[in-house]
Amino acid sequence: MNETSTSDRHRVVVVGGGFGGLNCARRLGGCSELEVLVIDRRNHHLFQPLLYQVAMAGLSPAEIAAPIRSLLSGSSNTTVLQASVEGIDVPTKRVRTDRGEFGYDTLVLAAGAQHAYFGHNEWEEHAPGLKTLEQATEIRRRVLGAFERAETEANADERKALLTFVVVGAGPTGVELAGAIGEMSRFTLAKDYRNIDPTHTRVILIEAGPRILPSFAPALSARAMRDLEKLGVQVWTESRVTNIDGSGVTVGAERIATRTALWAAGVQASELSRTLPAEPDRMGRVPVDDHLRLVNHPEVFVIGDQACAKGPDGRPLPGVATVALQQGRYVADLIRALRSQREVRPFRYWDKGQLATIGRRRALLQSGSLKLAGFVAWIAWLLVHIYYLSGFRNRVLVLIQWAWSYATFSRGARLVVEKTWRSYPS
Amino acid sequence: MNETSTSDRHRVVVVGGGFGGLNCARRLGGCSELEVLVIDRRNHHLFQPLLYQVAMAGLSPAEIAAPIRSLLSGSSNTTVLQASVEGIDVPTKRVRTDRGEFGYDTLVLAAGAQHAYFGHNEWEEHAPGLKTLEQATEIRRRVLGAFERAETEANADERKALLTFVVVGAGPTGVELAGAIGEMSRFTLAKDYRNIDPTHTRVILIEAGPRILPSFAPALSARAMRDLEKLGVQVWTESRVTNIDGSGVTVGAERIATRTALWAAGVQASELSRTLPAEPDRMGRVPVDDHLRLVNHPEVFVIGDQACAKGPDGRPLPGVATVALQQGRYVADLIRALRSQREVRPFRYWDKGQLATIGRRRALLQSGSLKLAGFVAWIAWLLVHIYYLSGFRNRVLVLIQWAWSYATFSRGARLVVEKTWRSYPS
Repeated sequence: MNETSTSDRHRVVVVGGGFGGLNCARRLGGCSELEVLVIDRRNHHLFQPLLYQVAMAGLSPAEIAAPIRSLLSGSSNTTVLQASVEGIDVPTKRVRTDRGEFGYDTLVLAAGAQHAYFGHNEWEEHAPGLKTLEQATEIRRRVLGAFERAETEANADERKALLTFVVVGAGPTGVELAGAIGEMSRFTLAKDYRNIDPTHTRVILIEAGPRILPSFAPALSARAMRDLEKLGVQVWTESRVTNIDGSGVTVGAERIATRTALWAAGVQASELSRTLPAEPDRMGRVPVDDHLRLVNHPEVFVIGDQACAKGPDGRPLPGVATVALQQGRYVADLIRALRSQREVRPFRYWDKGQLATIGRRRALLQSGSLKLAGFVAWIAWLLVHIYYLSGFRNRVLVLIQWAWSYATFSRGARLVVEKTWRSYPS
Repeated sequence: MNETSTSDRHRVVVVGGGFGGLNCARRLGGCSELEVLVIDRRNHHLFQPLLYQVAMAGLSPAEIAAPIRSLLSGSSNTTVLQASVEGIDVPTKRVRTDRGEFGYDTLVLAAGAQHAYFGHNEWEEHAPGLKTLEQATEIRRRVLGAFERAETEANADERKALLTFVVVGAGPTGVELAGAIGEMSRFTLAKDYRNIDPTHTRVILIEAGPRILPSFAPALSARAMRDLEKLGVQVWTESRVTNIDGSGVTVGAERIATRTALWAAGVQASELSRTLPAEPDRMGRVPVDDHLRLVNHPEVFVIGDQACAKGPDGRPLPGVATVALQQGRYVADLIRALRSQREVRPFRYWDKGQLATIGRRRALLQSGSLKLAGFVAWIAWLLVHIYYLSGFRNRVLVLIQWAWSYATFSRGARLVVEKTWRSYPS
């Protein structure tokens, strides 16, 4: 399909239906003099902060995902297209996709990031990252599969390797994964197996830096470390992974025999950035000015994980949902203001603080000078996440699932599906 | 693993964790002089009567599936093994699996059935059946994907083929699928697309026999046909499919151009039956005596879809969940009775009647001389299915989902996941 705008309206193309793109499109929805096209590879918007719960069988995929099409169906000026964007032609103002080319007057790039293996993409096979529902399902399959195989494994060394889980990277995702595996093996699975004792599970969290959760205050990092250790997680800081293969993980001179390694160590902005007339930074992020515009191209905005926007301290803003969300809304307001020739102040991130959770009912909260850990922080974490699930009708279901899991130590979604659907070989 | 019973207890091996196997194992659970081993290829028990709802994005996989391991974790005499059974060695009383061999004193075979293509397994690629969660997810991917592709398709013929859905086989599953596609396109999707009109969707239900739902009374069949037609489904009876490929379905001299065909036309009992000293029938089912035992092998029971047990009229019992469930419980009681040398009457199926649903809020109910159609039958259908979801903690969630869908015409699980989880090519 080759399509140019069919009307005379100003055409905005939004690439990506994550927190940045979706919130930008939503705010442009009511503006009838604009024509908005949202392009995403997937049919769904994903609530990524809860993705680890899908990987750990606490939630089902549909509980944290919703069709972009139906989230935007109320905006009559907005079209949604499921397509892969292959490149941006900035001089001619066109977006190339596998479903045709689309011209724009204003472009909003919010294509996000994926995990990065620092030049070792071959590690991915043995250590999946956690950015998509497919990866979450794969991690669930591996973790639950390891327990299943351990149940019938006669060889003690192999059984030990099956019950060893290595998580690389101790940012919020790594900490959440490690804590959840520790807790799941100790509480949820303990009574289900006859031949293995899931409480003998070894969970090792590996971090290259000097402490876990480095974006939090040192006192909170230390607290998180103690909480993880209570769940049986061993934390190895100042440890750099040098190899990952099918039989284990090498950390400097040490070798950990494991059948399940998970990757939470780094991200890389969308490859789409390379097709832009800009020099991406080390993490592939596109530098933008203080109005989130591409230098020399005020009609192109880049937001969310794909952008390298600077905070007031001159450091890049973190790749978190709230930054993308605020940027998406800001850009929408800016586009509308420009239509009426209004001046708009530069983007400023309103940092409400950060949260991380460690297993069932423990969390960290840091907001300005407020620092909290433990159950109260966990309640705050719960409320914040339920609140931000708005726009998803699944809020009630998620609450029920959690209340149930909390009351019974069970996990509702301990379901493993196979990768193939066919019964007969072709 | 090669394992013989480690105790002197009588060992019962149950193959299959469907309705038959699960209910048999549950009832054997309290019997401490028995040692029970349940083997299934999957980690989950599946509530198959609602599988079409997963395919049609009304429910999530985890809402109709639960780990066999946790469903049986309360029975201390029971072990669960996730393994593929490769064969049965009846003379030496051993079960061969991909995780080793297991000896038995009593064997209960409940390996079920899969869909059959009457010698045309190559059709499967173009017309998936609906027996597993993976297939349900694949069907969902195809149906929703066809609408997505139609949205940007410029060629009118191709767009028409994308919006044509062919369902082969008009038993309960075929009728449920066709009705759900008709309804989904008319109500759920209608407002989400800009360039196509989902109400122009064509759904064709093809049946080789003279009427749909042949197990129901003719008057109910006729009523179901009218209900389907109201949802825009065209019903072609006395029509035999002669070819299915990537571009369409051939029915005698006619050719239907479609990108989405679904198969609900026939089943075949588990291939495992072939390793038994018995002559399976045309559908691969194993003949059993009136106590559900293999002829000449009173220690081997065959139940559910894998068995050909005769009803009082001499005709084989239908392959439905209630038959399997009652047979599972009967065999468990029989095994326990034999331990105490008690006589047991032959198996008798208590036919409570049958139900089929057609889209939102219409159903058929037939029980003895009672025949119902329409909304009242749908309420009965709803209550029966909620009731039988017991043992699943998800009953409340399923109710909420349905209430929500009913109130809003939306479908909660309109989520398409990809088949691959990898970001980087290997």
